[in-house]
Amino acid sequence: MAPRPRLNALRGPLRTLHSCSRAAQAATASLALPATVASSLAAASAGSETTASTTSLNGWIRSVRRQKNVSFAVLSDGSQVGGVQVVLPKGLDESLTVGCAATLKGKWVDSRGAGQDKEFKVESVDFVGESDAETYPMPNTKQGIPLPVMRRNAHLRLRRDGPAAMVRVRSEMNWAMAEHFRRQGFVRVDMPVITSSDCEGAGEVFRVVESSPSSPAPASTAPASSPSPPEPSTAAHPPPPSRYLTVSTQLHLEAITSSLPRAYTLAPCFRAEKSDTARHLQEFWMLEAEVAFLDADTPTALDQVMTVAEETVRAVAGHVKAMPEIERYFAKHSPGLEERLEALLAPERYVRMSYTRAIELLQEHAAANPDAFVFRPTWGSGLQTEHERWLAEEHVKGPLFVTDYPSALKPFYMLPNESSWTVDSSRQTTTCFDLLVPSLGELAGGSLREHRLDKLVAAMDKHGLDRNAYEWYLDLRRYGTTRHGGFGLGWERLVGLLTGENNVRECTVFPRAAEGSRF
Amino acid sequence: MAPRPRLNALRGPLRTLHSCSRAAQAATASLALPATVASSLAAASAGSETTASTTSLNGWIRSVRRQKNVSFAVLSDGSQVGGVQVVLPKGLDESLTVGCAATLKGKWVDSRGAGQDKEFKVESVDFVGESDAETYPMPNTKQGIPLPVMRRNAHLRLRRDGPAAMVRVRSEMNWAMAEHFRRQGFVRVDMPVITSSDCEGAGEVFRVVESSPSSPAPASTAPASSPSPPEPSTAAHPPPPSRYLTVSTQLHLEAITSSLPRAYTLAPCFRAEKSDTARHLQEFWMLEAEVAFLDADTPTALDQVMTVAEETVRAVAGHVKAMPEIERYFAKHSPGLEERLEALLAPERYVRMSYTRAIELLQEHAAANPDAFVFRPTWGSGLQTEHERWLAEEHVKGPLFVTDYPSALKPFYMLPNESSWTVDSSRQTTTCFDLLVPSLGELAGGSLREHRLDKLVAAMDKHGLDRNAYEWYLDLRRYGTTRHGGFGLGWERLVGLLTGENNVRECTVFPRAAEGSRF
Repeated sequence: MAPRPRLNALRGPLRTLHSCSRAAQAATASLALPATVASSLAAASAGSETTASTTSLNGWIRSVRRQKNVSFAVLSDGSQVGGVQVVLPKGLDESLTVGCAATLKGKWVDSRGAGQDKEFKVESVDFVGESDAETYPMPNTKQGIPLPVMRRNAHLRLRRDGPAAMVRVRSEMNWAMAEHFRRQGFVRVDMPVITSSDCEGAGEVFRVVESSPSSPAPASTAPASSPSPPEPSTAAHPPPPSRYLTVSTQLHLEAITSSLPRAYTLAPCFRAEKSDTARHLQEFWMLEAEVAFLDADTPTALDQVMTVAEETVRAVAGHVKAMPEIERYFAKHSPGLEERLEALLAPERYVRMSYTRAIELLQEHAAANPDAFVFRPTWGSGLQTEHERWLAEEHVKGPLFVTDYPSALKPFYMLPNESSWTVDSSRQTTTCFDLLVPSLGELAGGSLREHRLDKLVAAMDKHGLDRNAYEWYLDLRRYGTTRHGGFGLGWERLVGLLTGENNVRECTVFPRAAEGSRF
Repeated sequence: MAPRPRLNALRGPLRTLHSCSRAAQAATASLALPATVASSLAAASAGSETTASTTSLNGWIRSVRRQKNVSFAVLSDGSQVGGVQVVLPKGLDESLTVGCAATLKGKWVDSRGAGQDKEFKVESVDFVGESDAETYPMPNTKQGIPLPVMRRNAHLRLRRDGPAAMVRVRSEMNWAMAEHFRRQGFVRVDMPVITSSDCEGAGEVFRVVESSPSSPAPASTAPASSPSPPEPSTAAHPPPPSRYLTVSTQLHLEAITSSLPRAYTLAPCFRAEKSDTARHLQEFWMLEAEVAFLDADTPTALDQVMTVAEETVRAVAGHVKAMPEIERYFAKHSPGLEERLEALLAPERYVRMSYTRAIELLQEHAAANPDAFVFRPTWGSGLQTEHERWLAEEHVKGPLFVTDYPSALKPFYMLPNESSWTVDSSRQTTTCFDLLVPSLGELAGGSLREHRLDKLVAAMDKHGLDRNAYEWYLDLRRYGTTRHGGFGLGWERLVGLLTGENNVRECTVFPRAAEGSRF
């Protein structure tokens, strides 16, 4: 603590320095953020003069080509696909190396080279954040950078066109989704990540423990499907009940639509799966939407939910398709991407087909082509990715909904079909759907929810769930239940579908998958 | 598995039932979602006729008042503050109880009562989701519902006007934030929740363990501030390194702005704090934004970051202030709210004042008013909430930035002020700020980041951090560093500020606080 007399002595100058002078300074200096490369180039290209006034350009140097009297460099700040060419007179180029950050002052002039209308003529180099080109992991090589190097350097890989374009597309997807849902009267809700229960009653979950010196983690683990009650403790306070990372926000979202009939969320979800595939992450983002007050006719109600899912995919895909990143980058790197986007946006409603019909078609195809599938399509078993892709890519050649899966494959909360409208009552099915798309297979899944208290309790008992842990969920059926349903859509999968990227690890900046991460 | 002959026999009828008939049905039935109460009422009010065509209305019954020949009920679906009055002839009212869900068919007619232009005359009750009014926890009592009951019934509390209005405001805040940042050229990024390090190097963190039968949780806990390397193991695979729930996405966000100079996120963050205050949650959402290529002049650069924060608050506050929820609910329940919103939107720039100046003012006030504060304001100590609130509520009467806190109070990654522009070099300060607001205190905090590799390494050593765990973060300074900075803003706190709600537990649907949660 400083003694008071000292403070009094300092008061005058400090006040001037910190309060008045800063305010005065800020009032005169421009606080606007500097223009991006894309916006600066666009402004220059819109102007008719070949030489405009001096301006600043910020970015990272992708390459330097030194000639006798002049050097050419490519500068990028990720604001557009490809960098811009900057021209440096001899002497000014010396501090620029591949990977360095630079603030350059100069003018846009007409370019004499090909491929770019304007180039930036540098007059001074105002700032350089150095980079050792020898060790820089993201050089602008034509042949690309090996995938393991890219993944190890996730913190720098946005210096490359593809990952930067992915981030911009993903950002715009979020915006397009929000615009669409807002127009449809949905509220966006932030859902809890730490939960007291495992939504699906299956699958491996992450458990959360407080990692402070005063509270050691319990040594025992609870099985995922039945959260154990707190054990008796000799301490003054009983240990808190087990807590998990959410695997789906659906149950909680149903609580929202028990008061506000249309709600959605884009939220992180977690599965401690060991599977190391191109389609799975341990941490992923999921779009989930729920709607209450659906039609009294069950097939119509399911159609309503499918329509909500379809319109969401259309809204996001339509917005992304118009982004320059598609034409200028992704379509070049992923043959057939534009056709796939067009199939998502075709005027016809997405095909809707029952699981039973899908199994028939798969069996017919397998009978005619014995080597078509590794897994034999069988009524009662889940569709394999190879089956899903054949249906979307070969049979429908576009997106399709497969509906009414066998109940035995589905979680407790889904509404079963009344046996009266299945032809064979031994084949109990559920009012659910998966949305299958070419190149990927399953993109989204949804269902009507069991809205009747007695039937829901029976389903929980059948699945061996502890009713006490779900009392609040049962309350939603006790106090003003509605016919309702919803769906979940893997956000990284949609990013991959819309950009042609086949591995979900490339659809998020810092993927968490079974192999771990250093970030 | 079903035998093939059986399937073949079923093919015809199944195809008809599941594929063709459903498609035909859907083509004729309307798949549009039903109108909300608000939209239906708005459409009726816009029409000139007193009786329009028959329409459906869905919602939950808040109250029923039975008279001799007719009953009046209030129906709400959370789409607007307050419900609407529905009128039921005798006989139709019998199944309706407080808390039940109902689909009512009828017509909008001019209302003879006060307070509402139109009322809904019910012709039939098409669906009822029952509710036992005796045990229903959310009756529409005038005196309100005790807070403990509200919190225990978070899954039903959106049936009340206040919590439902909060959800709508929070949803619109997300949209207004996204609109604003998009116009400013920022990308929105989804950040990892599971991280390998503790961003701040301090505080209690949650640890994540895989809760599957095959992988028991490690019995030991790592100290929060220094993630321990994996211990040697006798198993074939070494145990995975410790993983934590993120306390801030900032370090990762800096990696984004090392390639794309403007980025933001709205993401869940976690602190295992025991503090049970109205301002803290264990799980909360944080808006974080980072900007690269800031001005070469340090005070100007800090002003740039403060301006980004200020403009974000203004954009969100301006949008919320225009929502009907403010006038129709929150302003009525929180005296002074509209004045506070106006102060956030006043044309003058938010006051910016150094920490040193703030301490002077607090000390002057404490000297003149010995009972003003519990904690004595002292240079070198953090500002207490009582100090922050006095500055915002009494001294400035509006929002203010306090800048340049003592370095000893701040984490390793913040850029220190050069001693040349502090008058007294023993009082080392940091280029940082807190945004303080009336009724709350700290709303946001930000800083310039140490962008120089050698200085950052020295700061990490001084804070006792394991350099190896941050190699990727150091890379951001090795390969093209920029002058950059950013801020974090507690989203629940902003919800509270804009709605007048004083407890962050009321600013999210399912709060996770020290006392635990059954959801």
